[in-house]
Amino acid sequence: MAEYKAPVDDMSFVVNELLDFDGLEALPGHEEFSSELVEAILDEASKFAGQVVSPLNWPGDQQGLSFKEAEDGFNEVHTPEGFKEAYRQFADNGWGSLQFEPDYGGQGLPFALAIPVQDMWHAANMAWGLCPLLSQGAIEAIEANATEELKQRFLPKMIAGYWNGTMNLTEPHAGSDMATLKTRAERTEDGSYRIFGQKIFITWGEHDMTENVIHLVLARLPDAPPGVKGISLFLVPKFLVDDDGNPAERNDCRVLSIEHKIGIHASPTCVMSYGDNGGAVGYLVGEENRGLACMFSMMNNARLTVGLQGISIAERAYQLARDFAKDRPQGVAPGESSIGPIIKHPDVRRMLLTMRALTEASRAVAYVACSSVDFRTKHPDPAVRAYHDARVALLTPIVKGWSTEIGPEVSSIGVQVHGGMGFVEESGAGQHYRDSRILPIYEGTNGIQSMDLAERKTRGDGGRAMDSLIAEMRETINTARENDNERVQNMVDLFAPSVDALLKVKDDLIAGAETDVYLPGSISFNYLMMMGIICGGWQMLRAANVAQRKQSDPATAAPFYANKLDTAHFYMANILPRYLSYAAIIGAGSATTMALAEDAF
Amino acid sequence: MAEYKAPVDDMSFVVNELLDFDGLEALPGHEEFSSELVEAILDEASKFAGQVVSPLNWPGDQQGLSFKEAEDGFNEVHTPEGFKEAYRQFADNGWGSLQFEPDYGGQGLPFALAIPVQDMWHAANMAWGLCPLLSQGAIEAIEANATEELKQRFLPKMIAGYWNGTMNLTEPHAGSDMATLKTRAERTEDGSYRIFGQKIFITWGEHDMTENVIHLVLARLPDAPPGVKGISLFLVPKFLVDDDGNPAERNDCRVLSIEHKIGIHASPTCVMSYGDNGGAVGYLVGEENRGLACMFSMMNNARLTVGLQGISIAERAYQLARDFAKDRPQGVAPGESSIGPIIKHPDVRRMLLTMRALTEASRAVAYVACSSVDFRTKHPDPAVRAYHDARVALLTPIVKGWSTEIGPEVSSIGVQVHGGMGFVEESGAGQHYRDSRILPIYEGTNGIQSMDLAERKTRGDGGRAMDSLIAEMRETINTARENDNERVQNMVDLFAPSVDALLKVKDDLIAGAETDVYLPGSISFNYLMMMGIICGGWQMLRAANVAQRKQSDPATAAPFYANKLDTAHFYMANILPRYLSYAAIIGAGSATTMALAEDAF
Repeated sequence: MAEYKAPVDDMSFVVNELLDFDGLEALPGHEEFSSELVEAILDEASKFAGQVVSPLNWPGDQQGLSFKEAEDGFNEVHTPEGFKEAYRQFADNGWGSLQFEPDYGGQGLPFALAIPVQDMWHAANMAWGLCPLLSQGAIEAIEANATEELKQRFLPKMIAGYWNGTMNLTEPHAGSDMATLKTRAERTEDGSYRIFGQKIFITWGEHDMTENVIHLVLARLPDAPPGVKGISLFLVPKFLVDDDGNPAERNDCRVLSIEHKIGIHASPTCVMSYGDNGGAVGYLVGEENRGLACMFSMMNNARLTVGLQGISIAERAYQLARDFAKDRPQGVAPGESSIGPIIKHPDVRRMLLTMRALTEASRAVAYVACSSVDFRTKHPDPAVRAYHDARVALLTPIVKGWSTEIGPEVSSIGVQVHGGMGFVEESGAGQHYRDSRILPIYEGTNGIQSMDLAERKTRGDGGRAMDSLIAEMRETINTARENDNERVQNMVDLFAPSVDALLKVKDDLIAGAETDVYLPGSISFNYLMMMGIICGGWQMLRAANVAQRKQSDPATAAPFYANKLDTAHFYMANILPRYLSYAAIIGAGSATTMALAEDAF
Repeated sequence: MAEYKAPVDDMSFVVNELLDFDGLEALPGHEEFSSELVEAILDEASKFAGQVVSPLNWPGDQQGLSFKEAEDGFNEVHTPEGFKEAYRQFADNGWGSLQFEPDYGGQGLPFALAIPVQDMWHAANMAWGLCPLLSQGAIEAIEANATEELKQRFLPKMIAGYWNGTMNLTEPHAGSDMATLKTRAERTEDGSYRIFGQKIFITWGEHDMTENVIHLVLARLPDAPPGVKGISLFLVPKFLVDDDGNPAERNDCRVLSIEHKIGIHASPTCVMSYGDNGGAVGYLVGEENRGLACMFSMMNNARLTVGLQGISIAERAYQLARDFAKDRPQGVAPGESSIGPIIKHPDVRRMLLTMRALTEASRAVAYVACSSVDFRTKHPDPAVRAYHDARVALLTPIVKGWSTEIGPEVSSIGVQVHGGMGFVEESGAGQHYRDSRILPIYEGTNGIQSMDLAERKTRGDGGRAMDSLIAEMRETINTARENDNERVQNMVDLFAPSVDALLKVKDDLIAGAETDVYLPGSISFNYLMMMGIICGGWQMLRAANVAQRKQSDPATAAPFYANKLDTAHFYMANILPRYLSYAAIIGAGSATTMALAEDAF
């Protein structure tokens, strides 16, 4: 099968035209950031993704991981052939350090530029790409919360990519619920801690791809208050680090087993044990009992990048299906006189365009949301920072939830385009279908994302962040109305009523939840999906408006813009109308969801 | 994990209340058919499914098949432990022969009774159940088309279940397109034929579960006209059969390899080779060059039963997810004061009810459609036969297409309910997700089903069969309006506009296709899905109406009816509204589907 070819043109379009690129350039610390730099970096990254990372994807899935039990208890996980070398090259080339602080060796580039680059790793090889994804989260948590000494000791190697980071939240008895966490931490005289407990679902918790693994572990101190307010965050390295910054003594933590999963077979999902022999050495990150807040600082961006994975795998699945559809002869399509490739059949076009439109729309939503991370962190004006802070908070569950529903949907369509071949592993379509299925689950299930959206992000501020978003959608409508192009007008006609419907749903949620405790949970998933579809429509309308103007000027016209218009129009006519169902279902409230007796299920 | 427990109450309800049970009883040959017999058979079948077939499902997936290359070329496929014994028991108990003609050892029972029984096999073990599914199709094709001599020689053992049947259509160079078929047949002096060629995707083409394998093979005679009008159907046994009816000499056909698939790991998908050593002996079934028509007689019921598989696996996935949700403690749900099982969370209820409502609705649609098979075959009045013939023809692509979209959808929700555990193979949720993915593909992809619905079944008769269906939906609405129960009225209010929308879509399709050759293919998939959702709503309204009347009479009231009302109401409020999106997307026509240039994909 063909290797992944990064859609650099679409990525550049979103970065240059749909983000506030000038604003991004003007942020302090972004002095070296420019359109040329974007182009150069995307170009280089696309080569590495396509030539080095992508070829490992399918063999990695088939070969999988090998777990080697060790007599001394320090079991080993070996990655598929080539993974280690590719990761070393990734670190050597500085791909892991783009967006991090220069103080610890980062390149200080915008998150908004790191995102398309990461988009490429996940598309090229989702299992492999999870290693830097988790590391990024760990680095952020350490940057934001750890002491200077810890930062000096751990960040440079982590940012460079020679050590990876992990997130240790889940325990065997409870998944998403942190309140019942049991892993315990004890204080020692030297100021460090000893950690005891078992954690499950630890992505890249043990492997042979980096020299050290830096675990961030949530645990409870002996005198901690019960519930989520008694959780602290600890840095627990696989190897303790000596004063020269090199891995030294092995710490008391180990992998007990790895999971046998539906997909991402090359990404070790570990059961980790801490403190089987006297306690794993851990260092406090942030304050005692404030661990959950620290962990959230790492989880929020991880939610955005997991959302990104949905888009990445959708792109990959699209490319594979498109190549197959162009190549596979079958049947005489309407309007044709002889047998041709299946892409000529309208229903196959429908499938491919659905894949493409969902991918492009969700990409635009995600990149735009991620650009707010830069503004919220670096903009000199606190009001601007606050605005972007609220925007990221609102869009995070959308990017995570909606995009990760798109990943499996698009991958499944990709299987379908292949017909019987799609069900045969060798086509590669099945791997995307299997791999992508984790996305709606990890980093907070989409049920949890939807509750976050309905409760904290909508009801929590009385709907203010939503109102501001809706106001901007209306500005886009007004701008597009000034464009006298017929297709753009048709798109506006399709899009405008969806915004009205969104406003109504938001108002009904806020009002209804006052008297119906079951309402938010009953409607939240459909609310999230409706928001996602409409945010996608919003960005597609913005994209169409830009594309149409570029296309109508002979100086800037290019096939890319014509295609963008076609894809955006398809989105408005064939994807956006899903909001009608979501709105109707939400309108029915909680009654039928809550009616059936629990023991009747 | 828990074994499958057949939903005998729901199956009996559909058979007794939603089918024309009295009409079925009155059909010639159904003298022994009764409500008591239904109960007894479903009861016995549910034990066999739950105790014998279901326990083999998960181990069968994990163990998979083993392919043994043989020096003499007759390679072997070995099934997982226990499969062979269970299949022998299945045959010994007569489970394979329920609906077949008594002339060849069948039990002459209604297809409408065989269907719930088959529903159980597929739910218990989809890979295993494919063997009788394909056999049924082969038996039907032989019954309908073969000479008496062939019938006498092959049918008794096939109907009894000691030999299985296969369908050999697909060849390596083309999947769904029969016109380019290359396998060839030569006449011999004794009236038999010699077959040469390769076939792929042959389900249960070679294995150790039965004494003989009876292949039905499409091939082309030397003087056959080109295209689909030059295809003949041949019966090619693995072992030739002697005059005593026993397997004798090995025929010149063999398995070359088996596919490495996403799911149904225990069902061999074979590459078959015919005639490597002088030609495989084949017997003509039906007339020369009329093979496709013969094959369709087998494919039509197979399409119904593949649709059934979607429902079966949905039921299985529902049961697994429900058990998990009742068992898994996590978080404090709204309105609760302490941590409880996740089923208490409204979003989990939404997921489970979506699974349940889709399963019950599609089951009712499928069983009702299958009952028309009995009427069309056995009713003494040609007008009644014609009516049911048209009804089966119309509903076949719905049952196949819509139900097989439901299988993967429901299985995917099942994974989601399990959270992280769902992605781990040991939960069993992933197997359903993987297994079910074949359903929208085989036995005619759902794209092909949708074209069949739009072109042959709707445009082909000028919309008459659709008009008759819509008229019956309106009768149901009128009947339900006479029920003064408030919930039933609410359901009618939700359902009635969907029927109007369906009528409009049908009219627009017929009118629009006159001038737009791209229209049917552009909208057909959404048209199929819209039809499915509305047919499901129709049956759920019928069910609710019956359930409400039973429930309001103390003599018949039972928890089952209360639950049916709740589930039907959930369907109307939460599932049926999907038609709004389908209708809007269909309304946009073909323009945006056809706009993007082919080389721009």
